[in-house]
Amino acid sequence: MTQNKRVGFIGLGSMGWPMARNLQAAGFDVTGFDLRSEAMEALEGVGGRGAGSALDCARDADLLVLMVVNGAQARAILIEDGAAEAMAPGGLIALMSTCLPADVAALVADLAPTGRHLVDAPVSGGVAGAEAGTLTIMAAGTPAHIAGLQPAFDVMGGATYVVGTQPGQGAVAKSVNQLLCGVHLAAAAEALSLAEKLELDTQVMLDIVSGSAASSWMLRDRGSRMIQPPGPITSAVDIFVKDLSIVAEAGRGAKTPLPLAAVALQMFLSASGAGDGALDDSQVIGAYRRLQGRG
Amino acid sequence: MTQNKRVGFIGLGSMGWPMARNLQAAGFDVTGFDLRSEAMEALEGVGGRGAGSALDCARDADLLVLMVVNGAQARAILIEDGAAEAMAPGGLIALMSTCLPADVAALVADLAPTGRHLVDAPVSGGVAGAEAGTLTIMAAGTPAHIAGLQPAFDVMGGATYVVGTQPGQGAVAKSVNQLLCGVHLAAAAEALSLAEKLELDTQVMLDIVSGSAASSWMLRDRGSRMIQPPGPITSAVDIFVKDLSIVAEAGRGAKTPLPLAAVALQMFLSASGAGDGALDDSQVIGAYRRLQGRG
Repeated sequence: MTQNKRVGFIGLGSMGWPMARNLQAAGFDVTGFDLRSEAMEALEGVGGRGAGSALDCARDADLLVLMVVNGAQARAILIEDGAAEAMAPGGLIALMSTCLPADVAALVADLAPTGRHLVDAPVSGGVAGAEAGTLTIMAAGTPAHIAGLQPAFDVMGGATYVVGTQPGQGAVAKSVNQLLCGVHLAAAAEALSLAEKLELDTQVMLDIVSGSAASSWMLRDRGSRMIQPPGPITSAVDIFVKDLSIVAEAGRGAKTPLPLAAVALQMFLSASGAGDGALDDSQVIGAYRRLQGRG
Repeated sequence: MTQNKRVGFIGLGSMGWPMARNLQAAGFDVTGFDLRSEAMEALEGVGGRGAGSALDCARDADLLVLMVVNGAQARAILIEDGAAEAMAPGGLIALMSTCLPADVAALVADLAPTGRHLVDAPVSGGVAGAEAGTLTIMAAGTPAHIAGLQPAFDVMGGATYVVGTQPGQGAVAKSVNQLLCGVHLAAAAEALSLAEKLELDTQVMLDIVSGSAASSWMLRDRGSRMIQPPGPITSAVDIFVKDLSIVAEAGRGAKTPLPLAAVALQMFLSASGAGDGALDDSQVIGAYRRLQGRG
């Protein structure tokens, strides 16, 4: 019975908190840690336990879930703080943050002497997916290790896709996903700003391309926000500066040129440099307007 | 009753022929012209008439539909051959080919002295849409002229979108559509080739991005052809070399940088330069493999 296994959960932020809560509600015995003490109090409020440190959180855990900022933070916790060695023998680690593929591979090498095993399993689906337990999980690792984490993945995610057997390939899969999101978002801005410049009816133009072979999820979701006055912010320009920088770094690590992703990153950087980094990511269209000599 | 108006139809190719046939079947009195005599015979076989020249085809026509190669050919027919002046007084011209916006604008200026009026109305939807009468028509022109052509558009198209009042804006709309198609196709190849290079399970990767915010129509339609052995050709690499060249020219004419479209064009040019111009457009992925030092 896996449901009563001891789970350590480090990183109880906007994504991690609902993921940890869902695990606790599903019968896992969750101990959490976050730098913000109110996050631990919230976990205790639903029957979990708060730990005083990342090391305490990991102590004797059968499963350890990391939803931290990046690979460097994961490494500091697991290796430098000694969290990996504090786990139960044979403990399994799910690294669910968005990390650089090279950082994951290096971390796995450093974990080898500890006897603890890591599966990298970044997610897509955002806060809504974390709350609903419908995240898409992109896992890479040995089949036995993935199988050991599967009951927890089934609680947090709507689907677990195994993209490869080498830890780090999950991080690559997340990069492939974000490459497409970022390029499609910039392409929508490039196309709609051309229509603006030549004084087409942009709403009609958006209707055409939303229903044709030119369509993308990003175009349909963000297109209207590009041609109407800016509304509420769902995800900021600077998130794509970060995500496309990770994509660029993944390409560099693999000696793989990614020319469209590189151009899309420049457009998000331009928007951020103009002071629009905190605006909704649809406002990358402002960078195109300035590139055209407008705005 | 518009249905018995005299329609001239020039250009009875793979798109034009089913469009002309649908007009004849809907009650229009269609006279057609094409350089291939068998096209005229086919039209006569469904009750239409064949003309001996483009000029004869246009003579006394109330409506003249052009489905020719490009704007230069439209100009040669309408101005140099005198087809516009041969039409009935007040005749309306529907230029439905994919043309450069600047060519359409110049043509409209040259038509002014003839008293005949042009609406530019390029289409998307391909041969299947032409045969089914479900093309998407992107029309630009004065409302009265579009209204005069609407009964014919209703037969050939599933929807007519009025993108602007200036002829040439229809051509821009087609460019905006093709910009997105071309960039999305190259982006799919860029993303899937990265997954290949890093030895991910590419079918799993395609499943993930087909169902996430990373999705596009092109990715879902062409993605599997990129990661499996090449199959039948539905549209060739060189079609996007042409279409993205028109996009680039539209951008140049409008002094509008289009950085993603420019990069996508380079990738299709690379595929064509490697001898793959006649292959299915999904095979632009070959240019990425070579860029990565593979294949």
